Amino acid sequence: MKRYEIFVTGKEGIFDPAGEQSKRALANLGYQGIDELTIGKLIRLDVEDDVTEETVREMCRKLLANPVIEDFSITLLEEA
Amino acid sequence: MKRYEIFVTGKEGIFDPAGEQSKRALANLGYQGIDELTIGKLIRLDVEDDVTEETVREMCRKLLANPVIEDFSITLLEEA
Repeated sequence: MKRYEIFVTGKEGIFDPAGEQSKRALANLGYQGIDELTIGKLIRLDVEDDVTEETVREMCRKLLANPVIEDFSITLLEEA
Repeated sequence: MKRYEIFVTGKEGIFDPAGEQSKRALANLGYQGIDELTIGKLIRLDVEDDVTEETVREMCRKLLANPVIEDFSITLLEEA
């Protein structure tokens, strides 16, 4: 069994309403010094050993990320 | 300026419908060997140098995470 961690983040220049709103809400709570806040997805995927990173990349392109507006990166965490 | 990365993930045993649905969708696409798929949040927070990790922890408890059903971890990425 191994675990991949996939980070899905909005592409540069794509509006991130959830991030923008959280940033404003923090300011309203009195927090200062916040320059930028973006919210992406962290996907943890536990798979059998024979599932390769190339296959995971394909899963991201087909389903887990939206390649038009999102970037993704894949990290292999552990192998047991 | 420094950047914190915050990972917000569902607590053990809390139902994760988005993860469950993605797992099923991948199976329907023909992918095999998927044991577990969970979806959390990756928050990137760029702040002024005087914003401490303790302050970020407070932001998480108050707004960015829901401590009842979510865990969060904070990493300081860079300092410039």
